[in-house]
Amino acid sequence: MVDAALASGTAHRRSMFELFARRLSGGRRYGVVAGTGRLLEAIEQFRFTDAELDWLREENFLRSETLDWLADYRFTGNIWGYPEGEVFFPGSPILTVESTFAEGVLLETLALSILNADSAVATAASRMSHAANGKPLAEMGSRRTSERSAVAAARAAYIAGFTATSNLEAGRSYGIPTMGTAAHAFTLLHDSEQAAFEAQIAALGTGTTLLVDTYDIEQGVRTAIEVAGTDLGAVRIDSGDLPVVVAQVRDLLDSLGATRTKITVTNDLDEYTVASLAFSPVDSFGVGTSVVVGSGTPTLGMVYKLVARTDDAGDWVSVAKKSTDKASVGGRKSVRRVFDASGRAQTELILLGDGPGGEPEGADLTSPNREVLVPLVIDGTVQDGFTGSDGIAAARERHTRCVAELPPIAMRLTRGDPAITTEYR
Amino acid sequence: MVDAALASGTAHRRSMFELFARRLSGGRRYGVVAGTGRLLEAIEQFRFTDAELDWLREENFLRSETLDWLADYRFTGNIWGYPEGEVFFPGSPILTVESTFAEGVLLETLALSILNADSAVATAASRMSHAANGKPLAEMGSRRTSERSAVAAARAAYIAGFTATSNLEAGRSYGIPTMGTAAHAFTLLHDSEQAAFEAQIAALGTGTTLLVDTYDIEQGVRTAIEVAGTDLGAVRIDSGDLPVVVAQVRDLLDSLGATRTKITVTNDLDEYTVASLAFSPVDSFGVGTSVVVGSGTPTLGMVYKLVARTDDAGDWVSVAKKSTDKASVGGRKSVRRVFDASGRAQTELILLGDGPGGEPEGADLTSPNREVLVPLVIDGTVQDGFTGSDGIAAARERHTRCVAELPPIAMRLTRGDPAITTEYR
Repeated sequence: MVDAALASGTAHRRSMFELFARRLSGGRRYGVVAGTGRLLEAIEQFRFTDAELDWLREENFLRSETLDWLADYRFTGNIWGYPEGEVFFPGSPILTVESTFAEGVLLETLALSILNADSAVATAASRMSHAANGKPLAEMGSRRTSERSAVAAARAAYIAGFTATSNLEAGRSYGIPTMGTAAHAFTLLHDSEQAAFEAQIAALGTGTTLLVDTYDIEQGVRTAIEVAGTDLGAVRIDSGDLPVVVAQVRDLLDSLGATRTKITVTNDLDEYTVASLAFSPVDSFGVGTSVVVGSGTPTLGMVYKLVARTDDAGDWVSVAKKSTDKASVGGRKSVRRVFDASGRAQTELILLGDGPGGEPEGADLTSPNREVLVPLVIDGTVQDGFTGSDGIAAARERHTRCVAELPPIAMRLTRGDPAITTEYR
Repeated sequence: MVDAALASGTAHRRSMFELFARRLSGGRRYGVVAGTGRLLEAIEQFRFTDAELDWLREENFLRSETLDWLADYRFTGNIWGYPEGEVFFPGSPILTVESTFAEGVLLETLALSILNADSAVATAASRMSHAANGKPLAEMGSRRTSERSAVAAARAAYIAGFTATSNLEAGRSYGIPTMGTAAHAFTLLHDSEQAAFEAQIAALGTGTTLLVDTYDIEQGVRTAIEVAGTDLGAVRIDSGDLPVVVAQVRDLLDSLGATRTKITVTNDLDEYTVASLAFSPVDSFGVGTSVVVGSGTPTLGMVYKLVARTDDAGDWVSVAKKSTDKASVGGRKSVRRVFDASGRAQTELILLGDGPGGEPEGADLTSPNREVLVPLVIDGTVQDGFTGSDGIAAARERHTRCVAELPPIAMRLTRGDPAITTEYR
């Protein structure tokens, strides 16, 4: 496309691309934006290396003018968007990219790739965080998604309310709190469960968490307390009918005098099983597979569409595909989240024609509302506060605040309609 | 675990870990092993960098002896496994890792991460390849999975029978054939559909594929042939009721004299929609979201378990977790795929106690059979033929051969039981 547009003289037409989801996949009540910080860091570094240019030249499908243009590529346009951690709804313009056509179209796959994947994790993680009713949730799913996605998933889950991750690289790269656990292999490696517990206590102290279900849970708990004493930090249970087993283990720990020893559970948990255990004597959860693959919705179906471009006179022209089943709403937009009298979000109001950040003209906004779009990149410069560890901390705090604004129906785990209505005006 | 095992003196016990899936997720009839080549390349390069060691030291949860051990880490053990492209069934020992406990346990997350993700893609891709009934399938899903997974997914889909990818990095890294397409944005950028088609033909010649559904498909096809002539390579359709629309477009192209112009379709295809179009006048398919997220099964639930280890005397001891709902079958194994009289695979025979590659003793093997396990790593050295572009070509060819051995029921797209039975002897 870039090659042909450079040849036809249209590549430099000022263009506006919009990234949005046509619907909330999986019957979710709200979506959570995640990956924005990673995307902005990637855009800052988006260059074609010599090795990449050499390969493209050898493949011989681009003209040399196009290869030269790619060699000089850097994004110099503007990006507005929903800040990371914000919630979104069908049609929400999560990113709006304004640049030449060629500069903007090159970002399509990168932007969709990062935001579709990370937002799918965050959207699932947000539901789990709410279901846990304030109890800590650790992300432990690295093994169930590919090796780099695992690091990104830990980051997205943390933004959406998880408290820690078992992925050490996520701790190193992003400053996310890390935690670990012993596997059944550690118990099986030793000559007895008692020997394994002794080895773990010797290395990690009595504050550690012992995995008690390798052989027999009741005996495992008794052995754990015999070895560690009643100051044992926690026991982990990874199998069985958890609501029943957890109650039995709590009673047993209490009867052994280990009243402060906590119980952590794992075992293919998702938002539904977490909800079913939230009011049991469980103290914390470890969630693996379901959070890293978006709990049934591994990608969000976000798209990146050209919504406006300039003509030869430099005037903006709204454009949109006309095919009946995939129509998009063209033009420049601004977004207000509108609240009802009780302060709960009620409407996602998308104002056509003003452009992001613009003042709405003639829009009847008597209800309380706030602007949702923020500038993320201005003239190619990534704005402060959205990247690195600071960006993650801000996104996590923002997520809590934005979810708290939603009406109660947003917290339902059943499949259903979006919690608030999207309106175009 | 490594820290505690080094302290307790068990870290150096010779151990055997097995990577397997307890069931075929999603009611699949067979699974496809993919990612092995990527894993072997990652194991060859598996080192702790100074930056990583510094971070671990600052986090202050490992003893200095453990940090020194990590600094010297390299895998020196043996790995047997199902070669890439091979099919697998519940319980199939896809990888068997023999090394010290500490060396082997460190590979757990890496191995599961790569194999769970890549095999999920390949398992879905194999079904789609069969459903396409010999028509070419291009992988176009980069935007619906995270940015590095996209490259791995293109590779896995190619191994399982796809013919090309739109991911150029997969072309550069792995030598996979690449192809491209114009998006609706390219048409919308220009002042008219005709101007867009003219620009594309000027840059790419009449052999290109024009996207005809931006405004009105019938008019789009007419404009395409007016601009390109009857030598136009292909038209792409990305919306509408495809079986109906495809038949109409074929008739229209023929009536315009463009009898050799092909039709390619996209639009959220999966194995079911591909099957429904396989006998229509479609010439090729572009599949995006569904293949990169494993068509409903984004991860395969593979686990990595300690199945045997030596004791202080150096004798092997089979070990297995005893929890009732997650029991695994301990011990060293060898695997034969056993065929019936017509040459179709019938049984996945897992021979306990011999160890991989060993000759079965006392096993009654009167039926034709072949050894499935191959040595992948010997004394830390990755064996030839499994990595790089050669490994991918071999895996693709192997996949075709292994699928051809399966009984007809394996090709059913409905959810059901595994196509062949796993037996332990």
